[in-house]
Amino acid sequence: MIGFIGLGIMGENMASNLLAVGEKLTVHNRTKSKAQPLLDKGAEWASSPKEVAEKADIVFTMLTNPGAVESVALGEDGLLKGLSENKIWVDCSTVNPEFSKAMANKTEAAGCRFIDAPVAGSKDPAEKGLLNFLVGGNEQDVKEVKSYLDIMGKSIQYMGSHGNGIATKLAVNLSLVTSMATFAEAVTFGESLGLDRKQLIDVLLTLPVTAPVLKGKREMMIENSTFEAQFPLEHAHKDLQQIAETAYKTGAPLPVTHGAKELYAFAKQNGLSKKDFAAVYQLLASEGAD
Amino acid sequence: MIGFIGLGIMGENMASNLLAVGEKLTVHNRTKSKAQPLLDKGAEWASSPKEVAEKADIVFTMLTNPGAVESVALGEDGLLKGLSENKIWVDCSTVNPEFSKAMANKTEAAGCRFIDAPVAGSKDPAEKGLLNFLVGGNEQDVKEVKSYLDIMGKSIQYMGSHGNGIATKLAVNLSLVTSMATFAEAVTFGESLGLDRKQLIDVLLTLPVTAPVLKGKREMMIENSTFEAQFPLEHAHKDLQQIAETAYKTGAPLPVTHGAKELYAFAKQNGLSKKDFAAVYQLLASEGAD
Amino acid sequence: MIGFIGLGIMGENMASNLLAVGEKLTVHNRTKSKAQPLLDKGAEWASSPKEVAEKADIVFTMLTNPGAVESVALGEDGLLKGLSENKIWVDCSTVNPEFSKAMANKTEAAGCRFIDAPVAGSKDPAEKGLLNFLVGGNEQDVKEVKSYLDIMGKSIQYMGSHGNGIATKLAVNLSLVTSMATFAEAVTFGESLGLDRKQLIDVLLTLPVTAPVLKGKREMMIENSTFEAQFPLEHAHKDLQQIAETAYKTGAPLPVTHGAKELYAFAKQNGLSKKDFAAVYQLLASEGAD
Amino acid sequence: MIGFIGLGIMGENMASNLLAVGEKLTVHNRTKSKAQPLLDKGAEWASSPKEVAEKADIVFTMLTNPGAVESVALGEDGLLKGLSENKIWVDCSTVNPEFSKAMANKTEAAGCRFIDAPVAGSKDPAEKGLLNFLVGGNEQDVKEVKSYLDIMGKSIQYMGSHGNGIATKLAVNLSLVTSMATFAEAVTFGESLGLDRKQLIDVLLTLPVTAPVLKGKREMMIENSTFEAQFPLEHAHKDLQQIAETAYKTGAPLPVTHGAKELYAFAKQNGLSKKDFAAVYQLLASEGAD
Repeated sequence: MIGFIGLGIMGENMASNLLAVGEKLTVHNRTKSKAQPLLDKGAEWASSPKEVAEKADIVFTMLTNPGAVESVALGEDGLLKGLSENKIWVDCSTVNPEFSKAMANKTEAAGCRFIDAPVAGSKDPAEKGLLNFLVGGNEQDVKEVKSYLDIMGKSIQYMGSHGNGIATKLAVNLSLVTSMATFAEAVTFGESLGLDRKQLIDVLLTLPVTAPVLKGKREMMIENSTFEAQFPLEHAHKDLQQIAETAYKTGAPLPVTHGAKELYAFAKQNGLSKKDFAAVYQLLASEGAD
Repeated sequence: MIGFIGLGIMGENMASNLLAVGEKLTVHNRTKSKAQPLLDKGAEWASSPKEVAEKADIVFTMLTNPGAVESVALGEDGLLKGLSENKIWVDCSTVNPEFSKAMANKTEAAGCRFIDAPVAGSKDPAEKGLLNFLVGGNEQDVKEVKSYLDIMGKSIQYMGSHGNGIATKLAVNLSLVTSMATFAEAVTFGESLGLDRKQLIDVLLTLPVTAPVLKGKREMMIENSTFEAQFPLEHAHKDLQQIAETAYKTGAPLPVTHGAKELYAFAKQNGLSKKDFAAVYQLLASEGAD
Repeated sequence: MIGFIGLGIMGENMASNLLAVGEKLTVHNRTKSKAQPLLDKGAEWASSPKEVAEKADIVFTMLTNPGAVESVALGEDGLLKGLSENKIWVDCSTVNPEFSKAMANKTEAAGCRFIDAPVAGSKDPAEKGLLNFLVGGNEQDVKEVKSYLDIMGKSIQYMGSHGNGIATKLAVNLSLVTSMATFAEAVTFGESLGLDRKQLIDVLLTLPVTAPVLKGKREMMIENSTFEAQFPLEHAHKDLQQIAETAYKTGAPLPVTHGAKELYAFAKQNGLSKKDFAAVYQLLASEGAD
Repeated sequence: MIGFIGLGIMGENMASNLLAVGEKLTVHNRTKSKAQPLLDKGAEWASSPKEVAEKADIVFTMLTNPGAVESVALGEDGLLKGLSENKIWVDCSTVNPEFSKAMANKTEAAGCRFIDAPVAGSKDPAEKGLLNFLVGGNEQDVKEVKSYLDIMGKSIQYMGSHGNGIATKLAVNLSLVTSMATFAEAVTFGESLGLDRKQLIDVLLTLPVTAPVLKGKREMMIENSTFEAQFPLEHAHKDLQQIAETAYKTGAPLPVTHGAKELYAFAKQNGLSKKDFAAVYQLLASEGAD
């Protein structure tokens, strides 16, 4: 029996793929209604994280931040209360290495096993089982969960000990969010020289100088109006802030990344928080009365 | 008859591909010795740019900067003195839009035609005929030279009127050079968290968050020592400076790009000018006595 | 009776000025030996923060960070355990507004009064009673402690409710630390043009374009070698990090300040952590083998 | 006889101070009407820069940029055509060191003498004779003009050979314009924490962490509305651009200054070009619909 806690867009899609291949699933979510689609497909409801842990041998969590993970894992009805010996908790949430290591320690102190396995990829790859797992933990433990990760993802990057999965995820996010900012600057620059936006975007996305993931932003940037959120700008900014705070502790200077961070801060201040993070382009390209 | 002026590494490879398919070539270079390999393959020597223009119907130039283009084009023995009616000058040099437009005007004033056709791609694609041409000028003129561009490149991006090819090239360079800086920061950040450099570089290059062209930097970054120049850091810095000066004129704010520019300035100050521009990583990752 | 807890360089000098005008003082410090100079001048020793609070009506604290404040204030032998009704705790430590408000709440919950009163000014003004107090809290409470602040400082800036003193202190630190960075850049720039460092520094410090506090860096910058710490570079960096984290929460974009922050991060990485923060100049001015 | 060319706000005030102490003045300006106030006070009109140079022994110029200086100095009716042996040209314009050295060379080639003497200080100090002259050139020559500089200014900073005056001026401008940006950030930050803008501005201007010249921005920042230009924002941006281009040539990395430069670029894009450069605060503090 597999457990799954945290059924937002990402979690639901991941769990759904497990169900689709015939895995038995026990699920829990703070808001029960969000579990309904999975229950309809045959998943079993558990009334608490603890109950999930009691019923399942391997529990996946996909939660929004360290606070949410903490509240699911610790406390009276928490996950750790239900985990018995040798069970495995696989946390797919995007947190930070320090926090993840602390969770690993608590889990091991309870005689159980912990893997950090955050994902690169958003809603669409989650739905199609094409996520990339960035994994930290004991290598043998990872082998035990591999078959499940293979169902939900297309690649598993084993990065070493506890916390290394999430460390890699932060580095990946740094690239993603900063690349979006530099792509927006490249387009802004070219347009300021009179180039046609659509043509320029297509050339930049065709040539190997642009991160391929940004192809997904093509239409919204050409349109330059609604920027409906796939990945909300305020989350991109939050990720850079988390990266900045982590880098402060490790001593890594990140001048370019900080420049991008403050650009997103500006974008937030200008009302773009809830838009897709590609809306950073809208900020750069907007012209006042000058 | 095709003319080719400017036989550095790029120019020689481009001209060589024209010869290889049987085109007749007249060539000139400031230093004659650099023309020898092409002469050995059957190219004809001309003693001046003017002579090239007199003999050829289409003249390609591939020079290092506006100064070099000016000295080849203008002056007593210059290209424009030799061009007679309707001939086409295709300038593949990386200059700036303002300069390129000025050259177009002078060429048209002489009754001839001008195309700006800088390339994305360095030595290796030049050798294999896999360059990407970014082209500005009259569309009909571009059609007339298309078959030659097809020999030297794998794609032709027609961007509109005079100067638009070079404008696009600057936007492409902005992406390239800034992406290198953010990639270096992502690696530095991950390493500071204890990740293995090689593993991290491979994950970042595998996932779609990194510009594919940076795959070419894999070995030198893993090695982190010699950074033998494919694209010298001082040239990358020069390109960002040119972009900055152009953006000042057009009014495009480029905060992230400027952060990258100053990072390269630091790298130059620390003795990395002649290294590959990937050596910006070496600067970020270097640790002092702290 | 006045209490004083936290007898580092700043605290000792401040307490010493109170003693000098005849105030009766009870003091405590984690390391007792640091209290000796004050005990020699007539201060009374208390074995815990609680004991200080029991004996004094007004207790000043001057500690290094929120953690130190927390450990002095809370806990079994903590300050709050000893404060009885209506006593006043004046915290002069540099913390952050959120933390300071939390301390105010805890103090008021215990029926006592709280003032945040961090200082602008370092060792020298502390010794001479020339500090500037930046004060938040109830205005009437501030009036009650005014005579003591007047002994230790030359100005009292009343900024409003709880946390506003420390908020102002962070804004002041932003100015101080960022100004040092831009001063260093101005000198680096001028020297790169061939100007004599000493002459240039003197002109910049004479003209009103430079923060006057930087006059104290004149000799060490002219000398450009030891940069013996008055205000260690790693503390300056820590202050900017605290400012950055606070600004993330309030949503203020601070692009220039973040640029300075990463410059100090670089300086730390290059072994300058323990030097005075003016050593950021050394980083900028240092030349490699280029 | 003293000559004065360039009668904008600065030039007129400077020339007026020379007249006021009884100096005989010959003046010229592109637009004659601007000379009228001085002619009314007894100055003599010359119809060209050449004529000024023929009549005067020492000629001051106060022009807006290198282009204006060039057009006054060179050409048929230019200053250099009228200067005869040993006369002195004192250029007070803000240009760049390279240009200034070129002017020095041309002047010396004509057997005459050149001094670069740009000023720190704007309209108000110009009117009151309180400018600070930043002077480069032959020391003996500077002594010969000292009495006139003393009339127009309160200090003369002799910085060494040709171009050093203007080099110093650029370093001073770097400080001025960048300080304004960091002051704006400090105020924005403090306000985001709930501090009262007026109170905060007054504290920051009182404490020695802020460049004193910024006291002149107090009212407009408190008001935060019109920002009537004393020093237009687009000029501040232009100065930083000039500094950036100069630093590129000398190899000085200026990360913080570039951050400020792009902040001003943003401000221009948002319609603040013609406002005082303190309006960079308005950009930072403006809130969108977030």
